[in-house]
Amino acid sequence: MASITPSRRVRRTPFSDGVEAAGVKGYTVYNHMLLASVFRSAEEDYRHLKSAVQVWDVSCERQVELRGPDAGRLMQMLTPRDLRGMLPGMCYYVPVVDGTGGMLNDPVALMLSDDRYWVSIADSDLLLWIKGLAHALYLDVIVDEPDVSPLAIQGPKADELAARVFGDSVKDLRFFRYGYFNFQGQMMLVARSGYSKQGGFEVYVEGSQNGMPLWNALMEAGKDLDVHAGCPSAIERIEGGLLSYGNDMTRDNTPHECGLGKFCSTQAAIGCVGRDALLRVAKEGPVKQIRALSFEGDLPPCDRLWRIVEKGNVIGQVTSAAKSPDFDTNVAIGMVRMTHWNEGTKVQVDTQDGLRTATVHEKFWI
Amino acid sequence: MASITPSRRVRRTPFSDGVEAAGVKGYTVYNHMLLASVFRSAEEDYRHLKSAVQVWDVSCERQVELRGPDAGRLMQMLTPRDLRGMLPGMCYYVPVVDGTGGMLNDPVALMLSDDRYWVSIADSDLLLWIKGLAHALYLDVIVDEPDVSPLAIQGPKADELAARVFGDSVKDLRFFRYGYFNFQGQMMLVARSGYSKQGGFEVYVEGSQNGMPLWNALMEAGKDLDVHAGCPSAIERIEGGLLSYGNDMTRDNTPHECGLGKFCSTQAAIGCVGRDALLRVAKEGPVKQIRALSFEGDLPPCDRLWRIVEKGNVIGQVTSAAKSPDFDTNVAIGMVRMTHWNEGTKVQVDTQDGLRTATVHEKFWI
Repeated sequence: MASITPSRRVRRTPFSDGVEAAGVKGYTVYNHMLLASVFRSAEEDYRHLKSAVQVWDVSCERQVELRGPDAGRLMQMLTPRDLRGMLPGMCYYVPVVDGTGGMLNDPVALMLSDDRYWVSIADSDLLLWIKGLAHALYLDVIVDEPDVSPLAIQGPKADELAARVFGDSVKDLRFFRYGYFNFQGQMMLVARSGYSKQGGFEVYVEGSQNGMPLWNALMEAGKDLDVHAGCPSAIERIEGGLLSYGNDMTRDNTPHECGLGKFCSTQAAIGCVGRDALLRVAKEGPVKQIRALSFEGDLPPCDRLWRIVEKGNVIGQVTSAAKSPDFDTNVAIGMVRMTHWNEGTKVQVDTQDGLRTATVHEKFWI
Repeated sequence: MASITPSRRVRRTPFSDGVEAAGVKGYTVYNHMLLASVFRSAEEDYRHLKSAVQVWDVSCERQVELRGPDAGRLMQMLTPRDLRGMLPGMCYYVPVVDGTGGMLNDPVALMLSDDRYWVSIADSDLLLWIKGLAHALYLDVIVDEPDVSPLAIQGPKADELAARVFGDSVKDLRFFRYGYFNFQGQMMLVARSGYSKQGGFEVYVEGSQNGMPLWNALMEAGKDLDVHAGCPSAIERIEGGLLSYGNDMTRDNTPHECGLGKFCSTQAAIGCVGRDALLRVAKEGPVKQIRALSFEGDLPPCDRLWRIVEKGNVIGQVTSAAKSPDFDTNVAIGMVRMTHWNEGTKVQVDTQDGLRTATVHEKFWI
């Protein structure tokens, strides 16, 4: 595989020195920023994530900050999820859609106060969408990207490691809640969240200069826990059915197609963009939906959309796939038409190496 | 350097098969898409670009299409450049700014007809900004990304190669004008433009399936011209002072700071976003501006912003640098405060390998 060429445009992060020292072997680019993709090997990283604890540089989860009297109104405008129950200390997973209900991003929103939110974004410049709305509507709100870089602590020993650095009370955090915890005299925002099913935290590090001290402290404190630098594991996230914006969903898809209907209380989300379109979708139900798929045998890398075909018709697509050591099959994520989305349906998938048979599943593996 | 990890999110292009067959060695990611960065070596690619002809997969210059009765109004809203003289057949380089005059992108706009434009974007999701404005203002316009992928023909022999494939009349195209030319029975939009100073064309290929036939035809027709697969050359574009969005300018910068004041006729550009801020800037003039800089000796890769410092104060930044074989120096692009921006000023630059001395120049090399 070709190497990645350095430039300022593909931004380094406050933790890049640590990532390099840990021997990163592969990168991807996410929100114009480097995101490590492999350290030892995809399989070794995956096994370690499931058995120990990893520190992930996920700075590429950039924040969009909304600040000002209209921040709350704008936040509700962005998503069909009903935000009326949201309070400071809470994180909400919020599908963001355009006027036709097409997904623009699937961020996690943090309410910092009545008039201040962070939107922790997936891989699209959601800042520009939000700025466009705020500008055109003359909203009284500042929309910008602050100097905040998330660092994730993930794995079964994440609680233990986090407690050593932030104190035992960090263990009391509930899922998708955040609190402020002391690190070397500074209060840091720590949330119980992260892009794996292994549990753990994300520390929203404010100020680039505070990045490496935290990285080093975690590495030092976790030595006997076998802490390693890591990164989101394609295998593990597919097993767990964690979708990836740009891979498994794009502007072409509604949240309902993505299985995110449960996050859409569109009737209640007064003022949200895409409301009319999504009310219609909610009424009729989607005609295709995200599904788990399994493949036997060897697969080429899923670096492009694979069409699911039947008698010359396209009845779906596969957008992520990886060989799963734990489940002894190739695990995959795709979108399948309702005619074929029931458990156990066999379908033909058109990969760059030819047709392969896959089995549709209604549930993911973990 | 680490390798780049394949995924659907980092999109392949209609020409990826050709790029791979040509032995691509390095990639970057641009608008969520693969962009080749090196084939033989940076220097060999550069020498070849200046002496022969190259075919570049610049599909990553994605198009945003504006279509509908309000397309013209929206297009003028996007840029401080006066578009009243724009006609079908013309390409305009258009700085796009936010409400404070900060650069969001520096695309090339093509007027296709009174109610239809393509905006050929640099590396930010300008689609989201434009969709946000159009949605919030209830404009009667459709904003979307069509299946259009530019292929560039660049180098001193570009006219000869293009003429062999599109006919001699393509040579009559003036700079930043486009026309439709026949290729295998299909009319293709060809513009005289491209991200080098060597001259050439960009073919806006509509329909992914039409990509490889054109690629192959160009490679076949150009054999005796020593045609090669190529890509934008960092060395050549720095020598020529071609700015790169995300490298040399960001939302922090006004067009005036970027030396793009000549494209801002803000007084005349009624209705453009950022008008008030830019009228103020135009009146006062920028306090820092893009400059060429040269460095003697060896430099590390410019993969991050290098601050220009004097007595503990930051007086500018360097954002692109490369060793130039033809000019026997390191050529660089930076932004320098007015106190230090005159020809010949020596400045200290803080690189990851320590302080280096640079000389400020008022003109680029080519």
